[in-house]
Amino acid sequence: LGDGLFETIRFRHGRADRLDRHLARLRAGAGLLALPVPADDAMLETAIAALVAANGLGETALAQARITLTRGPAPRGVLPPDRPLPTLLVTAGPAAEPGPARVVVAGVTRRNELSPLSRVKSLNYLDNILARQEAAGRGADDALLLNTAGRIAESTIANLFLLLDGVLATPPVADGALPGIMRELVIERTGAVERPIGPQDLARAEALFLSSSLGLRAVVELDGAACGGEAAALVARVAAACR
Amino acid sequence: LGDGLFETIRFRHGRADRLDRHLARLRAGAGLLALPVPADDAMLETAIAALVAANGLGETALAQARITLTRGPAPRGVLPPDRPLPTLLVTAGPAAEPGPARVVVAGVTRRNELSPLSRVKSLNYLDNILARQEAAGRGADDALLLNTAGRIAESTIANLFLLLDGVLATPPVADGALPGIMRELVIERTGAVERPIGPQDLARAEALFLSSSLGLRAVVELDGAACGGEAAALVARVAAACR
Repeated sequence: LGDGLFETIRFRHGRADRLDRHLARLRAGAGLLALPVPADDAMLETAIAALVAANGLGETALAQARITLTRGPAPRGVLPPDRPLPTLLVTAGPAAEPGPARVVVAGVTRRNELSPLSRVKSLNYLDNILARQEAAGRGADDALLLNTAGRIAESTIANLFLLLDGVLATPPVADGALPGIMRELVIERTGAVERPIGPQDLARAEALFLSSSLGLRAVVELDGAACGGEAAALVARVAAACR
Repeated sequence: LGDGLFETIRFRHGRADRLDRHLARLRAGAGLLALPVPADDAMLETAIAALVAANGLGETALAQARITLTRGPAPRGVLPPDRPLPTLLVTAGPAAEPGPARVVVAGVTRRNELSPLSRVKSLNYLDNILARQEAAGRGADDALLLNTAGRIAESTIANLFLLLDGVLATPPVADGALPGIMRELVIERTGAVERPIGPQDLARAEALFLSSSLGLRAVVELDGAACGGEAAALVARVAAACR
């Protein structure tokens, strides 16, 4: 039933980026789902570091670890057991700096900003998969999701930032944007503002980029048309501010 | 990522109810997800029957089998592999005739009728889990989900039927109701009509019941108030028509 949560954490030369914020978000999601986290932060931190080292990633320039927390085994049915035995899984592997992205606005589905799940990193990812499949079919790397009101929420794996009339902006969480860790950092470091973004704003933006915990990606193509020549330079500036 | 589908099939005295419709729905969902079904209908039918027999359910008055189809193993990321190796799992166990239900209208989340996932039985069930947890917290057996427009879609595990001004009605699939196999049968056998149902219709309904492949349940309490004294008799009549 996709009854769980995950976090993807970037490692640079063996050091985790903002693990404290990832663990705080994991616990917030677990609170929403009433899902016990079977380890304290120190234990998780130790386990993840040990795994990254054991996988030979201690010196790797860019790596990632993924924490997956599920409700664990349960009988058939929708109501979780009173005393679940959650499954906690950590995997780690190398990562690559994400390159420039061609994106489309997904037509196949919508983000449900009226569900609290839009604000936690749950394992219910099928809408994102459908949109990503649509993107692949249209020759793009990622898809932007509209929410139920027709406003932009985010992409299937990243938040969206736009330079609009010289102001850096990003869709609000209330519009269905996941409260991304990198998104939060970009807002803190650049003073970017949260504001509702309509499809028409995409076309007139001076530049667009995507942000995820693995990095920032300039958007170089939108629905098949080249866009935002300034995006690469903007990404370089913002990335420098968010180290 | 909840990247899969499931079906729950009722067995009575070792015989499957409407297995052909369940398999057709499974294939329709697999088509949406571009997920290959690694067995033909005859193979699935044989396997399910063999499992039911092997589990000693061949003479059991009421049993159920569940088919789960997932994308199978894949690397990290949202885009499924080009050539997935799907996992197909069948389980079977005894079932109980569902009794009368106390229901609430969920406040925690909404059904996203703008996603095609609302029309297939996917493994993305967290919104339903949240609503069911809310129901349990409010002393109820199940919760009705509003869609993004504020109309009733269905419950967390069943479709809803209402007797309204003497006419049996059920929310349309376009409003976020899963196209349930039992729902379809009730419509065929009783002439029930699909029409948008608002929360205000619930209060004035002469009777309400829930339908799932495991049976029909009279709704005896709605948001804490007793309701629909006629529901039990209506359920008996409709169930007799849908054998």
